[in-house]
Amino acid sequence: MRMSKLVGERIKESPNGATLKSHIYLLRAGYIKQVSTGIFSLLPPAQRVNQKIQNIIREEMDALGGQEVLFPVVMPRELWDMSGRYDSIKGELLRFKDRTGHDMVLGMTHEEAAVHMALNTVKSHEQLPFMIYQIQTKYRDEARPRGGLIRAREFTMKDAYSFHTSQADLEDYYKKVYDAYFRIFKRIGFKNFIAVKSDTGMMGGKVADEFMAVTECGEDRLVICPKCGYSSNMEVAVSVKTENDHNVAGEMQEVFTGNAKTIEEVCAFLETDACHTAKSVCYQTDDGRLVVVFLRGDCDVNETKLQKIAKSELTPAKVEEFGLIAGNIGCINLKVPENSVVCFDKTLQGLENFVTGANKKDFHIKNVSASRDLHDVEFVDVSLVKEGDRCVCCGEKLNLTRGIEIGNIFQLGTKYTATMGMKVTMPDGTTKEPIMGCYGIGVGRSLASIIEEKADDKGLVWPMTIAPWQVHLCPLRLDDENVATLAEELYRNIQKAGIEVLYDDRNLSAGIKLTDSELMGIPIRVIISPKTITQGQAEVTIRQTGEKLFINFNDLISELKALIADEIEEIENNL
Amino acid sequence: MRMSKLVGERIKESPNGATLKSHIYLLRAGYIKQVSTGIFSLLPPAQRVNQKIQNIIREEMDALGGQEVLFPVVMPRELWDMSGRYDSIKGELLRFKDRTGHDMVLGMTHEEAAVHMALNTVKSHEQLPFMIYQIQTKYRDEARPRGGLIRAREFTMKDAYSFHTSQADLEDYYKKVYDAYFRIFKRIGFKNFIAVKSDTGMMGGKVADEFMAVTECGEDRLVICPKCGYSSNMEVAVSVKTENDHNVAGEMQEVFTGNAKTIEEVCAFLETDACHTAKSVCYQTDDGRLVVVFLRGDCDVNETKLQKIAKSELTPAKVEEFGLIAGNIGCINLKVPENSVVCFDKTLQGLENFVTGANKKDFHIKNVSASRDLHDVEFVDVSLVKEGDRCVCCGEKLNLTRGIEIGNIFQLGTKYTATMGMKVTMPDGTTKEPIMGCYGIGVGRSLASIIEEKADDKGLVWPMTIAPWQVHLCPLRLDDENVATLAEELYRNIQKAGIEVLYDDRNLSAGIKLTDSELMGIPIRVIISPKTITQGQAEVTIRQTGEKLFINFNDLISELKALIADEIEEIENNL
Repeated sequence: MRMSKLVGERIKESPNGATLKSHIYLLRAGYIKQVSTGIFSLLPPAQRVNQKIQNIIREEMDALGGQEVLFPVVMPRELWDMSGRYDSIKGELLRFKDRTGHDMVLGMTHEEAAVHMALNTVKSHEQLPFMIYQIQTKYRDEARPRGGLIRAREFTMKDAYSFHTSQADLEDYYKKVYDAYFRIFKRIGFKNFIAVKSDTGMMGGKVADEFMAVTECGEDRLVICPKCGYSSNMEVAVSVKTENDHNVAGEMQEVFTGNAKTIEEVCAFLETDACHTAKSVCYQTDDGRLVVVFLRGDCDVNETKLQKIAKSELTPAKVEEFGLIAGNIGCINLKVPENSVVCFDKTLQGLENFVTGANKKDFHIKNVSASRDLHDVEFVDVSLVKEGDRCVCCGEKLNLTRGIEIGNIFQLGTKYTATMGMKVTMPDGTTKEPIMGCYGIGVGRSLASIIEEKADDKGLVWPMTIAPWQVHLCPLRLDDENVATLAEELYRNIQKAGIEVLYDDRNLSAGIKLTDSELMGIPIRVIISPKTITQGQAEVTIRQTGEKLFINFNDLISELKALIADEIEEIENNL
Repeated sequence: MRMSKLVGERIKESPNGATLKSHIYLLRAGYIKQVSTGIFSLLPPAQRVNQKIQNIIREEMDALGGQEVLFPVVMPRELWDMSGRYDSIKGELLRFKDRTGHDMVLGMTHEEAAVHMALNTVKSHEQLPFMIYQIQTKYRDEARPRGGLIRAREFTMKDAYSFHTSQADLEDYYKKVYDAYFRIFKRIGFKNFIAVKSDTGMMGGKVADEFMAVTECGEDRLVICPKCGYSSNMEVAVSVKTENDHNVAGEMQEVFTGNAKTIEEVCAFLETDACHTAKSVCYQTDDGRLVVVFLRGDCDVNETKLQKIAKSELTPAKVEEFGLIAGNIGCINLKVPENSVVCFDKTLQGLENFVTGANKKDFHIKNVSASRDLHDVEFVDVSLVKEGDRCVCCGEKLNLTRGIEIGNIFQLGTKYTATMGMKVTMPDGTTKEPIMGCYGIGVGRSLASIIEEKADDKGLVWPMTIAPWQVHLCPLRLDDENVATLAEELYRNIQKAGIEVLYDDRNLSAGIKLTDSELMGIPIRVIISPKTITQGQAEVTIRQTGEKLFINFNDLISELKALIADEIEEIENNL
């Protein structure tokens, strides 16, 4: 490809509104262009990377016996009514009417379409297990698109669906996909990614794992044990909390705390620590019920877990409307409406000698004992893992970090086959609803996340396996006839050798050309100039390491081939 | 691929509502499944064909220097407002609001997105010409989807856009794409397709060619000269009409024709031929103006041409509301509202001695002479080419046939670059709006149209270049241990040889297996059975010709390779 004809331009300034490295460089290096909020066009270099990632995914899916199919982007409401998700999914599911007034949706995931395809076309247990997958454009009407391709409204995704006659068979297959995902992300070039236990969310089902590119700029909070390998999304993470060193409680005592309302204020007023208090957090369900959580004052509520207990999405409650006194709510003598949900977090179990609100304006109670004063209470896990918590498996101190979700896999159970009426006949003549797994990879998100991992302060750095081109041929001083002639010859020969080459045939200053090449991130750069020609050598720079090699023109093609093969081998050997 | 695991089933009965061969067989052979009106899922075999067609297109686009990109499916209204098409395109453009209430559209074509990509990223004439293309899902909210993949609402399309500094450069490039399209359709396997002149429609621009798979089941009417090669879509076709053998007209004379209102009735009543009459057809414009066309009674109005003259879409007029008498409208003494459009077709030019309405209830006028009685009239071409018409180029009798549009190419001019403000600097320092071409190929339509060309009464027949698999391995009597062992061995060896093979590993009757294989249309079928094993041979059938070969097992792989290579070579040599 000649750079003079390449559509797209390199920009020096960071674009307005972009804060993530991947977003900034994709815009600055001419890889993407925003068309609307969270909607982008991919320019030629990005589409090349996009296709290379797709091909890696395709190879691994095919190796698992996956059958590639294509589901529609636009689907009728009826399909989503069958699973109940037309109503249960909120605003992210884009709904519209076609010209006949029929309700339609834009596909954000394709469980319904997958079951629809198998319905009546797969009838016997002998056809199971099977897996169908597609790589396709999806649309999710995100409330807050951000970060370029990290959280876009329109995105390319691989989604796969497997069907099984038993949970054991699903679990077997799930493990194979799990392993294939490791191969995929390694082949894409990721070094810093992990699989974590995750919440199943709107997909339903019970077991789910997420593949996370570990980076501080990620939206997801992760909990990792550096010793035993326990890893989890914060949403479902568990931990052992540090225990308090308490005396056995004395007699409960109401104390005036006045304007001290927050935990910090109350602790300061009573000269105690947050871990010697039981704070309350109050929410409201979709249908207006009150949810009160009591947990140790130094901990925070895990809202994902709480929503499962309350079986509703939750919003902060206006406590006064439920007859409670903000700042003085406590677990002793609490009076709430009958249909309320009151939860006690495990951090309160066995807690002695703590402070809680008195449910009376300007008063708290001290010297409370969980074992003595909390009656008929079931303690549940609704607090977030925090800094200092220890691993439930091995007791090691947990690391808290962040990540970008680049893939996810779910054991779905029969949620979709049951609601959509799919059955297969079993060997004994009975019928059974197949048990499903589903498996997603965000192609655009992987593309952006690898940038978060690799890019440096000069620009993009592509792994050889997904680089838009393998070699960037940068002749300097193209006004020099020797340079121009040799450059054209090299361009032809490098292409002939089957190497993917971007040829900077523009007669521009060395400064512009070198800056552009660093920004674009092609793995190997070949410079020729009047000086290198005199020396009979090309200057070859490895983008990732900055390493410089001087290679005789006669050896150039074979050396380039070797450099490319070496990097690919290093990545593949790592599997 | 093992057929026991292949998702999809073969059906014996023709599905309800399907009338086209391609639609019926794609459903019956387990290639597609309808999800909603005009919306289909592609099952694994169809997706394989789909990808092979895409790869052929991609290779030819890349050979033209095309740069593959990806535009969004969902676009904001603003983009389509820039070109004016948000308002000018009617119901086929699917409009909806996102969750913030913003007006969005689903892409049915991407001229706006292509200019948006180049806007500000291509600034100098030196970057031109360039061509960007994508292969992507599109949605057109068809009022009447029909024929399965022939006229679907959601479909896969390759669309390409080129940018030029001069009309001459566009014309050069246009010719290259035109030639590449011939290569593409030949490589897909089409034998019976042509390029025809066409209307530019909603795309704008002046020159357009359509590529038509010639078939009687096509929606488009085509005009072809068997001698000089003139070919055109009926919408823009021209011809030389047969001339009438007329005496010079006598004096005009009003005659009572009573209830004879249609041309047939009037001709019967007055004992004359339709070609000796001038009939009228009346329409109404979008803004309520009357349009009257007079043309020879044996001809029909070309509404595409008339709409261009009237500069409006047209609907049949209620003539009484304009003061006219239905059945007696004529070109002598016609009184119409001032803002009406009155057209005289070229078929009336020089016509002598004809009958026309008298604009008086129950009367016509005979002995009318165009040269004598029609004053200040400009004759225009607004009649359809009809059976018996002759070629304007060479005088040969024209053939009328039908076709399915599988590709189209347009010289767009500056419609989009001008409205969207794209300019490049020219060598002399001035700026210029680039001149565009755009080039589409319907992938799904090509897939369906090749079926219309090739399929026989037993089922599908795929050309080797796009077949889902090259070989269908059909062992009969899999309950026989020798057959089962040899079949598994052959399956492994055929795969190892790099041949794409569908292996019917189901223990079913010969009847079902052979019928299924004919329905699915894989080019080469290999049968082994206890009998063929005794003979040391496999029975090989060529699906297209029905030719049977008996090949020794030792030679089987090399013979299969040769058969595959031969058919591919035959197609490629034909380019």
